[in-house]
Amino acid sequence: MSKENIQVCLAARPVGMPKDTDWDIKHSPIPKAEAGQFVAEVLYISLDPAMRGWMNDARSYIEPVAIGAVMRAGGVARVTESNHDGFEVADHVVCMTGVQQFFVSDGEGVQKVDPSVAPLPTYLGVLGMTGLTAYFGLLDVAALKAGDIVVVSGAAGAVGSVVGQIARIKGCRVVGIAGGAEKCKYLVDELGFDAAIDYKNDDVGKALKEHCPKGVDVFFDNVGGETLNTVLPFLRMHARVAICGAISQYNNTTPVNGPSNYLSLLVSRARMEGFIVFDFVQRYPEAIKAMAGWMAEGKLLSKEQIEDGIENFPTVLLKLFSGGNFGKLIIKNTAAG
Amino acid sequence: MSKENIQVCLAARPVGMPKDTDWDIKHSPIPKAEAGQFVAEVLYISLDPAMRGWMNDARSYIEPVAIGAVMRAGGVARVTESNHDGFEVADHVVCMTGVQQFFVSDGEGVQKVDPSVAPLPTYLGVLGMTGLTAYFGLLDVAALKAGDIVVVSGAAGAVGSVVGQIARIKGCRVVGIAGGAEKCKYLVDELGFDAAIDYKNDDVGKALKEHCPKGVDVFFDNVGGETLNTVLPFLRMHARVAICGAISQYNNTTPVNGPSNYLSLLVSRARMEGFIVFDFVQRYPEAIKAMAGWMAEGKLLSKEQIEDGIENFPTVLLKLFSGGNFGKLIIKNTAAG
Repeated sequence: MSKENIQVCLAARPVGMPKDTDWDIKHSPIPKAEAGQFVAEVLYISLDPAMRGWMNDARSYIEPVAIGAVMRAGGVARVTESNHDGFEVADHVVCMTGVQQFFVSDGEGVQKVDPSVAPLPTYLGVLGMTGLTAYFGLLDVAALKAGDIVVVSGAAGAVGSVVGQIARIKGCRVVGIAGGAEKCKYLVDELGFDAAIDYKNDDVGKALKEHCPKGVDVFFDNVGGETLNTVLPFLRMHARVAICGAISQYNNTTPVNGPSNYLSLLVSRARMEGFIVFDFVQRYPEAIKAMAGWMAEGKLLSKEQIEDGIENFPTVLLKLFSGGNFGKLIIKNTAAG
Repeated sequence: MSKENIQVCLAARPVGMPKDTDWDIKHSPIPKAEAGQFVAEVLYISLDPAMRGWMNDARSYIEPVAIGAVMRAGGVARVTESNHDGFEVADHVVCMTGVQQFFVSDGEGVQKVDPSVAPLPTYLGVLGMTGLTAYFGLLDVAALKAGDIVVVSGAAGAVGSVVGQIARIKGCRVVGIAGGAEKCKYLVDELGFDAAIDYKNDDVGKALKEHCPKGVDVFFDNVGGETLNTVLPFLRMHARVAICGAISQYNNTTPVNGPSNYLSLLVSRARMEGFIVFDFVQRYPEAIKAMAGWMAEGKLLSKEQIEDGIENFPTVLLKLFSGGNFGKLIIKNTAAG
């Protein structure tokens, strides 16, 4: 076990893509648990596009990370010391651990997980926020119906790959938009997507005409920008666009590229709706049960890309924005004992 | 009665603002009714922002007006000759009359109206498509609830002025956005809006902060462009944006100005939805009954701006885009006998 705590803290608000100087790697003693607290060692942390928004000092659905504070992150951890009645040493937990090796907690917002039920990284992927985001965004926000024609952007990413698989399970035609031939091949060959469009090499509009000649009932958008704009004119009557994110725009130094084709919503009597998974917290158990069942049946595959070392967070994070990840991006705390 | 029929026909697809040369005023004999048809003389025609879209050769919710064809328009007319069992000479009707003095019809899509119940122009305004658009857009698409904070753009226009009044009737706080001090004063003093913002002279964002310090639950948008974009960051949790139109963008020669603040939908778990009044045709009677009741009680005022002469359509239409109209813009066929 490490003799010290390594914490990745926000040093400055990034302008555009985060740089090394926006981060401060702090070394400090391992915290101690006071009465009603426990200390846990982080095993895995989840890297998510939403993190870029948390770094901005702007009105959003959650407070910005303060300058000097440990970067916010979800993670899986193991309890190493406990003065809390609800947690014992060696318990595994999922919570907002932060990008650090150790943290102290009063147990609020902490869920215990069982490593014998699923590999620990899965609790950050399909059985974690990622999977929950896909589940509620697709089934509730986009109100998926059997037979819908579904397009998902960021389709080889953590959320997108689950969205596409759930849509297939529910009897829909699914077309994914992803970057590169390898990802597209994976979507079709391994995950059972009906088609995949390589936005780096294909003309997305032309490819949509080919793969969705009748148009699109549901668009689950993780990407925003030109991708969103290109899909909008394909919306069918009463189509639903679920706005999960806009990763193409998060590092802009100019205003977000707004969808000039938004009047397609009028032409097609369609709706575009944003959501945050936290709003569905009361229904997480329902979703996790469904997804664990599909995993057990082999219908829902989990793909993680696991990188090493908490201290590498600043560079690993950038893979999300360059398309350098394939599936759920996770960092393993290789220093964990 | 005229001895000839004057028809305003589309001569060319306009680029930007329609010009005189985009129109062709045709003189022809008055049509005759064959078996199962009637002929009617147009008394009033409705001028609507949507007309600009009908002139484009683009995918939309309705076929474009063909080059050479009579311009599409709703109107009120009086039957002058009938070989149709359902219509008698002197019956008053509302339908898509086109911008012309006389038309022949087989009765499809034609409603009879009673001039003793309401003045004829009202059937193009509050008791016509205009009022129906406001009613269903606000109550159904935007799912208005008592207590909502409502903002409407184009508030002194035909649809906007009805939207604001219905929202007041339903117990909401209503802020209108309109152009010029006279219109704003009218909204507050005559129509009972809680506040009005003059987009030509006020900073709309600042004024929204002042008049909607808690944010906006419903935004009914007739204008699009910068107005839509400025309102989006004010959306409250689970807000609804009804996209009725985007008059600021209809004469663009460059792409539509897409709302760069659309990610406010995500922050506020809000939705933006387009609609077309035609989808609610089964429920028109319900809406007309409600609105006629409110009119009778003096709660819902109808304001029309009536201009003279079918042949003046090309220039009168432009008032919609310059903000030169106040209330429902109508042309009276001054040649009608």
